[in-house]
Amino acid sequence: MARRVAVIGAGSSGLTCIKCCLEEGLEPVCFESSDDIGGLWRFKRSSTYRSLVTNTSKEMMCFSDLPMPAHFPNFMHNSQLLQYLQLYAAHFNLLQHIHFQTTVLTVKQRPDFACSGQWEVLTEDRDGLKKIHIFDAVLVCTGHYTKPVMPLKDFPGFETFKGEYCHSSEYKDPEPYKGKKVMVVGIGNSGGDIAVELSRVAKKTFLSTRQGAWVLSRISLKGRPIDMIGVTRLLGLVTLLLPRRLVNWACERELNQKYDHRLYGLMPKNRPLVNDDLPGCILLGGLVIKPNIQEFQGSNVVFEDETVEEQIDTVIFCTGYTHNFPFLSTSLFTGPSFNLTLYKHVLPPMLEHPTLAIIGLIEAWGPIMPVVEMQARWATRVISGNLFLPYYRKRNMKRYPCPKHADLQLEYIPYMDELANELGVRPNILRLLLTDPRLGFSVLFGPCTPYQFRLRGPGKWAGARNAILTVWDRVSKPMMTRVVPDNLKSKYLDKNRVIKIIIIALLINCKSVQTLNVDMLLLVRLGITGVLMFL
Amino acid sequence: MARRVAVIGAGSSGLTCIKCCLEEGLEPVCFESSDDIGGLWRFKRSSTYRSLVTNTSKEMMCFSDLPMPAHFPNFMHNSQLLQYLQLYAAHFNLLQHIHFQTTVLTVKQRPDFACSGQWEVLTEDRDGLKKIHIFDAVLVCTGHYTKPVMPLKDFPGFETFKGEYCHSSEYKDPEPYKGKKVMVVGIGNSGGDIAVELSRVAKKTFLSTRQGAWVLSRISLKGRPIDMIGVTRLLGLVTLLLPRRLVNWACERELNQKYDHRLYGLMPKNRPLVNDDLPGCILLGGLVIKPNIQEFQGSNVVFEDETVEEQIDTVIFCTGYTHNFPFLSTSLFTGPSFNLTLYKHVLPPMLEHPTLAIIGLIEAWGPIMPVVEMQARWATRVISGNLFLPYYRKRNMKRYPCPKHADLQLEYIPYMDELANELGVRPNILRLLLTDPRLGFSVLFGPCTPYQFRLRGPGKWAGARNAILTVWDRVSKPMMTRVVPDNLKSKYLDKNRVIKIIIIALLINCKSVQTLNVDMLLLVRLGITGVLMFL
Repeated sequence: MARRVAVIGAGSSGLTCIKCCLEEGLEPVCFESSDDIGGLWRFKRSSTYRSLVTNTSKEMMCFSDLPMPAHFPNFMHNSQLLQYLQLYAAHFNLLQHIHFQTTVLTVKQRPDFACSGQWEVLTEDRDGLKKIHIFDAVLVCTGHYTKPVMPLKDFPGFETFKGEYCHSSEYKDPEPYKGKKVMVVGIGNSGGDIAVELSRVAKKTFLSTRQGAWVLSRISLKGRPIDMIGVTRLLGLVTLLLPRRLVNWACERELNQKYDHRLYGLMPKNRPLVNDDLPGCILLGGLVIKPNIQEFQGSNVVFEDETVEEQIDTVIFCTGYTHNFPFLSTSLFTGPSFNLTLYKHVLPPMLEHPTLAIIGLIEAWGPIMPVVEMQARWATRVISGNLFLPYYRKRNMKRYPCPKHADLQLEYIPYMDELANELGVRPNILRLLLTDPRLGFSVLFGPCTPYQFRLRGPGKWAGARNAILTVWDRVSKPMMTRVVPDNLKSKYLDKNRVIKIIIIALLINCKSVQTLNVDMLLLVRLGITGVLMFL
Repeated sequence: MARRVAVIGAGSSGLTCIKCCLEEGLEPVCFESSDDIGGLWRFKRSSTYRSLVTNTSKEMMCFSDLPMPAHFPNFMHNSQLLQYLQLYAAHFNLLQHIHFQTTVLTVKQRPDFACSGQWEVLTEDRDGLKKIHIFDAVLVCTGHYTKPVMPLKDFPGFETFKGEYCHSSEYKDPEPYKGKKVMVVGIGNSGGDIAVELSRVAKKTFLSTRQGAWVLSRISLKGRPIDMIGVTRLLGLVTLLLPRRLVNWACERELNQKYDHRLYGLMPKNRPLVNDDLPGCILLGGLVIKPNIQEFQGSNVVFEDETVEEQIDTVIFCTGYTHNFPFLSTSLFTGPSFNLTLYKHVLPPMLEHPTLAIIGLIEAWGPIMPVVEMQARWATRVISGNLFLPYYRKRNMKRYPCPKHADLQLEYIPYMDELANELGVRPNILRLLLTDPRLGFSVLFGPCTPYQFRLRGPGKWAGARNAILTVWDRVSKPMMTRVVPDNLKSKYLDKNRVIKIIIIALLINCKSVQTLNVDMLLLVRLGITGVLMFL
């Protein structure tokens, strides 16, 4: 008989877990407390705001064996991502395995766990009926954006504040804030999005931040999605080979070339923020960056630099979320703040059997959904017994500053490769370069798309090669809606003139003209000409 | 007795004309048809939309002897520009010279014009009372954004269109378009702004363009205002010295580095567009670029590439404006389309006396208000007799593509210098470099601010030098609202490590890492390392 696996939650993680269970010959039973799939991507039920758009692009964040529809925009509105999840569920026939409106109350090791590795799951359905199920394994897919954090105690005098306040999870639309003075606290991705949106309708919008942030635009070189340019195996290699300090220095220099983070009041300690509009809103004066709040005095807010903003109508705390697993035994958590330390970011290492996996409890500098899928492939293969774990060990990435979150942070490509390697699905680049150079080049130099992990091994997908080679077609499909006649392309590059241009370009530092930058070399070169002109 | 000058209109041009008249000892009498100053910058009365923001920055677009308040944002909301005009009027005591709610009906040469150069001006006040005035000169300051152009005849089948339609001049807010399918026609600055704004609330927004446009962001190198980086005497010199074709090629290459205009469907013939958000809206799918409209078929719109968009609710024609001087005699206009050919873009050359000036009938690749002020300084000095014009000659700039508008187009710095030279207020850069090097460097290498034309000659302003030297302080004032501790600045540049970094940076093409760009040089360098790693 197939091993039965409980999947808790039918968001993006839950869906891919059901599919991976089926592929491994396991029998998935998914419990979803709401009445539909989609989790945090369901605007109507979840804590997202109406305008939320993905900050990784469609070719990077899809599941590895189902590219998003070509006509989808590269960065999708939350409703479009939900549409994709519905497509995924339909394509792989996943809905039949989901019990909707069924909440998991407790997940406990059975008395014979040491021997069987089995779990006892207590559920409650829409009619309040409770039921106990026995499972051979449990995949926890409830995500980590579940419990809003609102550190009111950190703000002295907040009890005297007379205006309204809420957590970003309650924010839906900017309309209620029209004409008001709004203080947004915290510069995470929601804080940035909400502040930008408010600055267009509110009387005045302030964004208070202790740490600041490095602002990245979704739009990178030549207008391409930033993750398709930034998340490549080649760059990963470069980053690996160079000292971390040099890489940071080069990245920060580049980010400051785009926006001087000191001039914009954004100079951060270390955290990134994806936002296309934030710097523009600051430059246009709609949004004012403020330092950390020192205290509240009635409707006034006093900042750490002793400035005061008066008559604040509303405070929106964009102070993030913490994960929350009320159904799990506290014995799985460690330390005073009940941290979860997970082997390979998936398995609680203190269990005798690897039959409980926490899926998606990560923050990657890259797309999340392919990571979740890889974790699901890996965990289900462990559960099915097809992958043997010689030992559990602790691993703690140290790249990011916040110690509370350190467990969640991981490097995208190395982590994907690590799990892929154990699964036998990591692409063999050298072999590809020799046997299929076109594909090899795409895998090494192109964006590290999820399809790369379907080229070989268990779960190999015949469409993977084609998906990798046509990735840029699907990028341009929703954008090239006005095809430009070819004669415009090479207007200034008639063959006759190319040589002339190259010669002149060598004489003068073209780059300086291009970036409209004044550099000293150019000045020296122009010196004599200039003086002659003025005489 | 002082010569009396009629100033028609109390917008930005009218105000500076009144001031220039006073400085030249002329007696200005300004007629303004509405009940307040500000012209097109008065949202409530004019054809602007609520969200309109200037596309040149405050230090570049102010009048030359009154910098904008330091706390104003660099790109101002229309209400802030109006505030500045009110400050200007108050500072120079201009309001007393304005007759509000008084419309100019006709402006005619007096019978003895050949000898006197005088004009007869017929006005009508709020009570319908008409009055004839005699003036020694007339300054026309009604602007050229007066008469909306809506070429319905160019769209076959438009009479079958069932939805609503309007001209951009009637557009105020995006709210009425919530949930609708909207077609914006024309990619001028208003077309871009309106399409972006609509794309955030409408069900679907299309932007149809025949020509496309080069998209420029207000945010340039290091996040500084683009005109402060782009409009410098040094760059002007470079542009002058290099072949136009090379400059165009370099500029286009740079613009395509930022957004590949072919990928974005924007590839243009030749026109620029200032918009920070347009490419982002295309990438996120909220806005879809379409080619020129071929015909309307009921609610459907057929495009030149034969694609069809169905069920369009509203069409907004952002097809621009034409100038309109109903009060002037048609004898001043030439050609079949009644073009105004103006000597130095100011004086109709067929008049025996230069006593009628059209102020502000220009489109500059730079800020307009300083040009208007320079024209006013020049024209009033001609009228006062302090500046003698040896000859009128025709001049027609050929830079821009649209022949109808060719008269309006001019190059900012050359034109400013041309008039300034005649006035004796053009900065002598060589002398400045020798006598006041700091100022000289700022004038040559820094942004070409209006203050540069107040350093000497008639109208010299004692505050000009200081205004030039403190320009960046006023840029940063509204932005550095969260001052960043200094220790963050040089985090990765401790002295001990600088040498190490330089050596490594020389070994590897740092630039490639910075721009996250994959270039061939880097590939070659990494080749051996890479192969060794995989083996």
